[in-house]
Amino acid sequence: MDSKTIGILGGGQLGRMVVEAAHRLNVKTVILDAPNSPAKQIHAGEHVDGSFKDPADIAKLASKCDVITVEIEHVNADTLADLQKTGVEVHPSPETIRIIQDKYRQKEHLISHGIPVAESYEVTESTEAALVVAAEKVGYPCVVKAKTLAYDGRGNFVLKGPENVKEALEFLSDRPLYVEKWCPFVKELAVMVVRSTDGTTVAYPTVETVQKNNICHTVYAPARDVSPSTLYEAQLVAENAIKSFTGAGIFGVEMFLLENGTIVLNEIAPRPHNSGHYTTDACSTSQFEAHVRAILGLPLFPEMAQMRTADTHAIMLNILGGDKPDSELEYCKRSLSVPGSTIHLYGKTTRPERKMGHINIVASSMDECERRLAKISGEDIEEAPKTVEGVAGTSKTPLVSIIMGSDSDLKVMSAGADILRKFDIPFELTIVSAHRTAHRMAKFAAEVASRGVKAVIAGAGGAAHLPGMVASETTLPVIGVPVKGSSLDGVDSLYSIVQMPRGIPVATMGVNNSTNAALLAIRILAAYDATLHIRLAEYIKNMEKEVLAKADKLETIGYEQYLNQ
Amino acid sequence: MDSKTIGILGGGQLGRMVVEAAHRLNVKTVILDAPNSPAKQIHAGEHVDGSFKDPADIAKLASKCDVITVEIEHVNADTLADLQKTGVEVHPSPETIRIIQDKYRQKEHLISHGIPVAESYEVTESTEAALVVAAEKVGYPCVVKAKTLAYDGRGNFVLKGPENVKEALEFLSDRPLYVEKWCPFVKELAVMVVRSTDGTTVAYPTVETVQKNNICHTVYAPARDVSPSTLYEAQLVAENAIKSFTGAGIFGVEMFLLENGTIVLNEIAPRPHNSGHYTTDACSTSQFEAHVRAILGLPLFPEMAQMRTADTHAIMLNILGGDKPDSELEYCKRSLSVPGSTIHLYGKTTRPERKMGHINIVASSMDECERRLAKISGEDIEEAPKTVEGVAGTSKTPLVSIIMGSDSDLKVMSAGADILRKFDIPFELTIVSAHRTAHRMAKFAAEVASRGVKAVIAGAGGAAHLPGMVASETTLPVIGVPVKGSSLDGVDSLYSIVQMPRGIPVATMGVNNSTNAALLAIRILAAYDATLHIRLAEYIKNMEKEVLAKADKLETIGYEQYLNQ
Repeated sequence: MDSKTIGILGGGQLGRMVVEAAHRLNVKTVILDAPNSPAKQIHAGEHVDGSFKDPADIAKLASKCDVITVEIEHVNADTLADLQKTGVEVHPSPETIRIIQDKYRQKEHLISHGIPVAESYEVTESTEAALVVAAEKVGYPCVVKAKTLAYDGRGNFVLKGPENVKEALEFLSDRPLYVEKWCPFVKELAVMVVRSTDGTTVAYPTVETVQKNNICHTVYAPARDVSPSTLYEAQLVAENAIKSFTGAGIFGVEMFLLENGTIVLNEIAPRPHNSGHYTTDACSTSQFEAHVRAILGLPLFPEMAQMRTADTHAIMLNILGGDKPDSELEYCKRSLSVPGSTIHLYGKTTRPERKMGHINIVASSMDECERRLAKISGEDIEEAPKTVEGVAGTSKTPLVSIIMGSDSDLKVMSAGADILRKFDIPFELTIVSAHRTAHRMAKFAAEVASRGVKAVIAGAGGAAHLPGMVASETTLPVIGVPVKGSSLDGVDSLYSIVQMPRGIPVATMGVNNSTNAALLAIRILAAYDATLHIRLAEYIKNMEKEVLAKADKLETIGYEQYLNQ
Repeated sequence: MDSKTIGILGGGQLGRMVVEAAHRLNVKTVILDAPNSPAKQIHAGEHVDGSFKDPADIAKLASKCDVITVEIEHVNADTLADLQKTGVEVHPSPETIRIIQDKYRQKEHLISHGIPVAESYEVTESTEAALVVAAEKVGYPCVVKAKTLAYDGRGNFVLKGPENVKEALEFLSDRPLYVEKWCPFVKELAVMVVRSTDGTTVAYPTVETVQKNNICHTVYAPARDVSPSTLYEAQLVAENAIKSFTGAGIFGVEMFLLENGTIVLNEIAPRPHNSGHYTTDACSTSQFEAHVRAILGLPLFPEMAQMRTADTHAIMLNILGGDKPDSELEYCKRSLSVPGSTIHLYGKTTRPERKMGHINIVASSMDECERRLAKISGEDIEEAPKTVEGVAGTSKTPLVSIIMGSDSDLKVMSAGADILRKFDIPFELTIVSAHRTAHRMAKFAAEVASRGVKAVIAGAGGAAHLPGMVASETTLPVIGVPVKGSSLDGVDSLYSIVQMPRGIPVATMGVNNSTNAALLAIRILAAYDATLHIRLAEYIKNMEKEVLAKADKLETIGYEQYLNQ
């Protein structure tokens, strides 16, 4: 796609996956790193053996390529700046790399551009006294951070009080330090942002990152249980941050979501990032291809960063090395039997805690992704029983929720439950009364969509308010079943349910017809599920056959005998 | 994932993509082919330079690997059989390769296993007389086919009558031939089937292949406008065919769909296949990884072959070489600006008609895939207008279909159309009368789901049969709007629509409430579309604000003044 050759400083897994993306575009790459590094393994071309910190090696790489980029920020930025002066293209710019390399300088840069960050102060010298001075400005507990060469939490120390100051200095040895105010976050969010040579930015979805022992463990895309406006705000913060730097490429932006709902930027990586690995299997264009496009000046546009389809959800699980060779393969072996999971190994020798690979899990819902993750993690999740007797109000991952105003409606509503069971649709079934448990109903309605349910079936009799009230608090389709009471023959319930005001629809069924309510729910699911669609078509065909058989019998034996049988 | 090394006969694009899949699983590969062939470019390991037809070269490959496989069937099967006797694993089995290499023998094998194929006869010798004898058994026109070394249509000649016999023999030169009955197919279908070492098979979705000049041009996954039962039958035919062979691996099965709905197997490829390229971006596990898994004895299971999510649709477009170097890049360059399209180039030198790469297009619907394909192909597609006035019964790609029994219902139903327009939902709107256009209604109902519509809104008055009748012929959710007539105040319409028999649900709205019908349709779409979900939540919030504003005014000015305003 482009006649330019890309030189990459660093041949680890990030470089490897950039090379993979470049291959598909017929874009040439050259790697500078140790022999047989992961990126070199998958490229038969001529590479440079050496160090991305050595000026001579970098110069050798530059002589073989047109554009230089990095897969790690701890490179020799001075050499890159010198090369840039001689006309070599460098992305992102050496100045950007230099600012980001020093986390304190990065923070000052972000503050000067109005980006929200945690309060922090420089430790003026590596003495206990200086550290105490800085720490007292933000209060205890606080985090002491190394300005440079920090990744996977190795440059951070949580300082609980003045008594730990000595320990902190020893842990972080002689590195330049700063102190950061303790950030009581409820969730860690991240957004990949790709920046073109002209400064245009495109943001990937907001994801949730979960760390274990300071190393990224899982990434949920999109982030779970975060409001749409917060997801959007995180993208804005990330984009604004990246707009403030120069040079092209992909950037990983890590953020904290605080209890009060505000977002604080934690730190930026000027390269492909672990929190964007899910993009390979879940987004239209992967972060690696986005990086190649950006540094070559190829098109970038918002839709490239979207999930592949409207119902795509993903989880990324990092595979870390264990104590024994190949111990990481345990996860991979289980993953081989889990639908929608794709293994990405990096060709590295096993070392404890080393990132050996990752697994991307893709499914139509986050619930399904989580079920798959549990299987890969070797956790047994008991599937909730699907019988009416067994559900007791909660299947763990229902697609349909059946609720009714009173247990007296159960006999009518159970027919619908039977249909769902017949189609193997996971559902829940419980009592929610509009009049007698108003608070429970409001909570149910507010949360039901975010639990992955796709349709609600609500049965009620008399002044049947339940379906309409639930419909007014959820965006899900609500199906109403009028249950016949002791008077008025069900017309009271029917009118109460069907005559909703404009704005809040309830899909109303015939009196007592919960069977059709279940079948409508299945039609809604089947509109997006080809397998279910086929089963539903079969079901309708079978109904036709049954009636034809009856007609045949009626015609054969005559109506009198038919009535007498 | 496995300590065995795979040796591949052939290093073209199929081998390249197998190597790509093997990399991700840390599985070692060695390639036998010419130097710098596509597969060798993306693997820095030691390979074998030579020919996959040369016994010495094959033996050299065997000495470097544990399992041998092929990316092309025109290999030396005898040598493979000899190697197998010495204990080298070969997949698929040399016997399978030998049967499939000879297309007439392949056909005889399939017939003996009860697989439906087109009638065909051997041409006993390469003379005009012998060809006429064979051709007259099946009648003209017929297809003369070379038994061996035929691909991309290069071994086929359409024989219109005895006057073309000489031409046919010249075109197919001295190859052994057979004659096949003309197969008047309406569509070409294909299914990838992966077979494990123990004979278990897993079938990928049934796709539609479109050829141009006898070369695969596009693949639609799943096939368009084919009934679910036919899609399933094609999978069964393909699986049964592959069960009849020995050895493991992925197979491409090409079929014809005849006018009468029957399926005839055309031919089989014992390797990854062009019709399965879409799997890389659209299915849980790609055909290439499936092949690696199969020959290593790693897990295979039905869900691995499914589309990644319930709403995933895909088109694969082959990129062929043009007359000038890099002329194929025109398509790729347009593709770089089209959402959901992924370029896969093979690192080959441009030659006219050579397969240089392919583009996979993935979207939530086939319509959206087709729009994207049109952009990549440089065709301008005019978007259908979304106004009620403009639709005139047909938006090209509606998600919602509004129908009504009579133009007298339009005033009521247009309110729903206005809501859909407000939410930018593509819809169509027309008149379909259950009583006066019964045939039109049946056709509409039978086809509407396959056109990508996700919900039908049907309005009718009086003895309102339309919603129920449409519901009985489609699997889509049908939303019924009772329209108030001149007598009975709409209760006639309401009862006619809501009191459906068990088995066929209609989501019934209040009398004249087409607004709610549209909002219910949007809720159904929003259950699978996060962006729409957010907009719907905003809409509900705004309704709340409006009512709160009215309440505020009422409280401020008092009810008497409020009534007088």
